[in-house]
Amino acid sequence: MRSVQIGICGLGTVGAGVFNVLTRNSTSINDRANCQINILQVGARRDNPQCDTANTDVVRDIFEVAKNPEIDVVVELIGGTTVAYDLVMTALKNGKHVVTANKALIAEHGMEIFSTAAKQGLVVAYEAAVAGGIPIIKSFREGLSANRINWLAGIINGTTNFILSEMDSKGRDFNDVLVEAQEKGYAEADPTFDVEGIDAAHKLVILASLAFGMPLTLDGLFTDGITKLEPQDVAYARELGYAVKHLGIARQTDQGVELRVHPTLVPQKSLIAGVNDVLNAVMVNADAVGTTLFYGPGAGSEPTASSVIADIVDVARSIDARAESKVHALGVDLSQLQAQPIMQIEEIETSFYMRFSALDKPGVLSDITTIMADSGISIEAIVQKEQPVGEDYVNVIIVTNVTREKCLNGAVERIEQLETVRGKINLIRVEHLDQ
Amino acid sequence: MRSVQIGICGLGTVGAGVFNVLTRNSTSINDRANCQINILQVGARRDNPQCDTANTDVVRDIFEVAKNPEIDVVVELIGGTTVAYDLVMTALKNGKHVVTANKALIAEHGMEIFSTAAKQGLVVAYEAAVAGGIPIIKSFREGLSANRINWLAGIINGTTNFILSEMDSKGRDFNDVLVEAQEKGYAEADPTFDVEGIDAAHKLVILASLAFGMPLTLDGLFTDGITKLEPQDVAYARELGYAVKHLGIARQTDQGVELRVHPTLVPQKSLIAGVNDVLNAVMVNADAVGTTLFYGPGAGSEPTASSVIADIVDVARSIDARAESKVHALGVDLSQLQAQPIMQIEEIETSFYMRFSALDKPGVLSDITTIMADSGISIEAIVQKEQPVGEDYVNVIIVTNVTREKCLNGAVERIEQLETVRGKINLIRVEHLDQ
Repeated sequence: MRSVQIGICGLGTVGAGVFNVLTRNSTSINDRANCQINILQVGARRDNPQCDTANTDVVRDIFEVAKNPEIDVVVELIGGTTVAYDLVMTALKNGKHVVTANKALIAEHGMEIFSTAAKQGLVVAYEAAVAGGIPIIKSFREGLSANRINWLAGIINGTTNFILSEMDSKGRDFNDVLVEAQEKGYAEADPTFDVEGIDAAHKLVILASLAFGMPLTLDGLFTDGITKLEPQDVAYARELGYAVKHLGIARQTDQGVELRVHPTLVPQKSLIAGVNDVLNAVMVNADAVGTTLFYGPGAGSEPTASSVIADIVDVARSIDARAESKVHALGVDLSQLQAQPIMQIEEIETSFYMRFSALDKPGVLSDITTIMADSGISIEAIVQKEQPVGEDYVNVIIVTNVTREKCLNGAVERIEQLETVRGKINLIRVEHLDQ
Repeated sequence: MRSVQIGICGLGTVGAGVFNVLTRNSTSINDRANCQINILQVGARRDNPQCDTANTDVVRDIFEVAKNPEIDVVVELIGGTTVAYDLVMTALKNGKHVVTANKALIAEHGMEIFSTAAKQGLVVAYEAAVAGGIPIIKSFREGLSANRINWLAGIINGTTNFILSEMDSKGRDFNDVLVEAQEKGYAEADPTFDVEGIDAAHKLVILASLAFGMPLTLDGLFTDGITKLEPQDVAYARELGYAVKHLGIARQTDQGVELRVHPTLVPQKSLIAGVNDVLNAVMVNADAVGTTLFYGPGAGSEPTASSVIADIVDVARSIDARAESKVHALGVDLSQLQAQPIMQIEEIETSFYMRFSALDKPGVLSDITTIMADSGISIEAIVQKEQPVGEDYVNVIIVTNVTREKCLNGAVERIEQLETVRGKINLIRVEHLDQ
């Protein structure tokens, strides 16, 4: 049996998972790879008590792994975009195939990395970069290869989904749940990357590139986090039959591609509304297959390792194969990718949830609905909540039909100027994900 | 650019979908395949008005396609296990790769077909045979290759799922919905294959073989259909927080493999309970990844074509590749498959829903719960429904905790012998799918 030598760089949560699963399931993994996969070397700044590396060559300099002439595949699991970038480029320069779980690296430097690899006939695989253990990259590149993708929408950050699930099911406050998420290890000490949607944006860029055959770019992507979400909006949404999810959405339109990450109301009866806790799910709508959904753990040691190892197996199986029998990093040859205009958020068409405080007297709702009608926006639901004792103002909630965001913004401005309306209007986009 | 010649045999619903999608999306499909895929010939007894075959060589004898020396890949879409078997074996004998959507053929003759193909270095691909447009075969063979699979449970027959969804959401009767399903084209004139679970059994055998590395065999598989399901049980299940689904379940246990197809109560809050209408979903629980779910259209012209074409692209991309760089038909070399004992249904452990008619008088429930306790079966819920006016008997519903089916059967026999209990006990298995 042929053998393929791999070097693992980074022995943190994911690195340990890869080491342990590869060791535990080596027989069946080798059978599927048609070769023997050996962990020849591990590069890690410190040992990980989760891994028994007694019989493994562990070095402290990860670049030693990237340059080791015996190694065929370098597995980059250190994260970040600085050292990881240098490591991957060094590995490629030294003729190694690369497997990585690093979404930031692929989203930001993917074009250069893939192009460098392609010139040398090397593979850079990154299944674990999006949606952890869900084989979503493979599904886009291979399983759905017959299709023209219309849109995709995904819960692609487990931390935000955990926080939203808790806010929804228990009426808890954002900051309160965040602290718990940090205690449980779901959220970093600095949670910005997760809760502001940056991590989801990295993943969305990768999925959109695969879906629409365009180069990876973060330019023009709209990102809004979940930090400003209030429990009352989550509760009102539930009353109206919606759940709040933090979605990455990419859609092909005649005017270009929508690329946006933001809190979104989705119908409670939709399958994606039932995806809770730290789990991920990606919905894909395509011309031949219709709508599919892929669900599973989006993070964690062994779930992520599952995808890293699937990549290792793919690379190992076809390590000597000719270029044309390999799957391209972004599904098609890089030269065939076509840039597309990314739509301004004001130009997208979607429905909206609006919540504001209005004086409880005759004619107020009529003023508001007149403004909406003037702006060409039709209303799906309007609800006036009973005012608290001693209060003159009531909460008004409106769910609109699909409208252009620019039109909605115009109406919002006019409504906020009404003397009977107090303060700002809270807005959340609504998606029905049914076409 | 290289070119690969394919011949499509059968131009019914799926054949027309393959022809049309391949034609419509040819540019992007060829880009992904790294070659030009040409429909060189179509074999069909009659034309299909859904397809514009004016510029295609259409012949009436499908065996002419299988023997055509210009053709590289034969796409078998005629269905059945007699002529389709001859066609596939003829194609292999003539050195063609084969793509098929035929679950019955693979379940019944897969071992012979794969073995014949492997000896000649040919590929037989069958993604469309299970769960239509969902790339589930690829996910098992490649995406989850790092894992040891613990269990899988799938809604893998769209017809039965449509019928159950209607019974559940509208309280309709089985026969009533069946007629509608037939009118809509979801069910055949003779619906036996679907409603008795035979179609699901074929698919389950394929998934179990991939999951547990064992040869394809229908021997020992337990199959129960949905024809005996009564609307009142569907309604009671709903009241207790369950939905009724027709599941194919395969589980690795220390005693062997469970292989069973039957109506199953699943918790309403589980994701799979939300899979309605003709849609399919497969849940997979594995040691590294945990639980994943794959959802999408399980049948239909273009969804099925999506999977057929994904196979064509895979075969075309690596048509000249060496054997070791190809994925084996069942994930590993046929010689590495290991037969496992299939467990008798009496030996499996699961929970049960029981419904029976008992006299409404003191002591009756006590007799019943005593029998359950004697049998070592603990009860999760027991509900006594109010009796109709003028009736002495009430419906009693029990949901048990996990027990061995044999023990349950013993208790059932004793309860049915009680003078206070009338008629037979209705049983439905309950799965929580959470471990």
